[in-house]
Amino acid sequence: MRSISRRSSFRRRVLTTEYEVSKQNKVRQLREKASYDRETVHAVLDAGLVAHVAFVQDGQPVVVPVLYGREDETVYLHGARKARVIRLLESTGTACINVTLLDGLVFARSAFASSMNYRSVTVFGKARLVDDIDDKKHALHIINEQAMPGRRADLRKSLENELKMTGVIAVDIESASAKISDKMPDDEDCDIDAPVWGGILPLESRFTTLQPDDLVKDGIEPSAALRAMEGKRL
Amino acid sequence: MRSISRRSSFRRRVLTTEYEVSKQNKVRQLREKASYDRETVHAVLDAGLVAHVAFVQDGQPVVVPVLYGREDETVYLHGARKARVIRLLESTGTACINVTLLDGLVFARSAFASSMNYRSVTVFGKARLVDDIDDKKHALHIINEQAMPGRRADLRKSLENELKMTGVIAVDIESASAKISDKMPDDEDCDIDAPVWGGILPLESRFTTLQPDDLVKDGIEPSAALRAMEGKRL
Repeated sequence: MRSISRRSSFRRRVLTTEYEVSKQNKVRQLREKASYDRETVHAVLDAGLVAHVAFVQDGQPVVVPVLYGREDETVYLHGARKARVIRLLESTGTACINVTLLDGLVFARSAFASSMNYRSVTVFGKARLVDDIDDKKHALHIINEQAMPGRRADLRKSLENELKMTGVIAVDIESASAKISDKMPDDEDCDIDAPVWGGILPLESRFTTLQPDDLVKDGIEPSAALRAMEGKRL
Repeated sequence: MRSISRRSSFRRRVLTTEYEVSKQNKVRQLREKASYDRETVHAVLDAGLVAHVAFVQDGQPVVVPVLYGREDETVYLHGARKARVIRLLESTGTACINVTLLDGLVFARSAFASSMNYRSVTVFGKARLVDDIDDKKHALHIINEQAMPGRRADLRKSLENELKMTGVIAVDIESASAKISDKMPDDEDCDIDAPVWGGILPLESRFTTLQPDDLVKDGIEPSAALRAMEGKRL
């Protein structure tokens, strides 16, 4: 029952609407795109499917992509129990996580002013291994819901062995920042009369259509939750 | 002319078709999806728009998204000259870079077997600041071409000040691995008769249609290179 009580105590805590700005999370470049607003940070985390997490191995930086899920101020990271990312985050203690969604190219009238539109969030926090079996089941549910909302209900319960082979790291967010760019070009005055086209080319990441495998039996259809994902944009 | 001679000497070097497998780049989980083939690694690097690079700051791991480009066995990373990622990679010496493209969700008949389809590459190499002005111009050209092929020709030359404010890190690939998943579910025998739908939901990242800003003058049209990007899939 640890997970339940921890979540309850979280809900009772009063949170500021913004993360405190510190050396760790302060956005130094393109500050006008920065936000420390919790809701903004949460919205980007909730829109992504893959997170990039950094850790240190033998003094060297390593980055790996992982599945994840967010609940309140905790980000859960998924991996094999024996995976480096799980073992090393468990032992080194601090995690830095970035989730970036690309929304398009910004064609300015100089190479210098050209850029991209994106939603990006960086999170820092202490990493801890989720070991308690009920906490782990709960965390895996959150991770499942992030990528495949509603799917878990269609599936059998996890086997003990499957849970053992799965690793989950919980990162309680200590500080975070969002950087969001959603703009037309911002050209210098000296460039705006150049005979060059300027504008944006949006990039859309969108689910297409469900494709059954060869084992699907007659009369077995995707659930409404799966159908609802078709055509959905990230 | 340093950049030219370096590139020429590269072309004369005889390369194996695969990166050597070492402790650094060995794929430990889901090994059947691993590849050390140079062409496979290059193809994923060439398909991406954003790379995640890890560095160490005050002993703590940090990960940031950056624009990049690849030429032969070198990955160029882009940032503001004063950005942490540029300063710290310059001083710490080693970089780990990951580029991941998501291609879909894999709905297996258990949560444990459910996964994603993706193309992912991890690169390790010594990082060096690109300081020589001709090398820097060349590297920026490679980075520009990665995201906006053919656009550079439409634009004026970079100003000295713009070049000074831009930072480029070159990472000569020491080792690398690709991990590619492009499959239907791989369910356990005990699950294949479950009355549950199984299959995939592809995720497509695609450019849509060019949108001009308010400054575009009558008669100024996007170049053929820009038009060619419309509708293109990553």
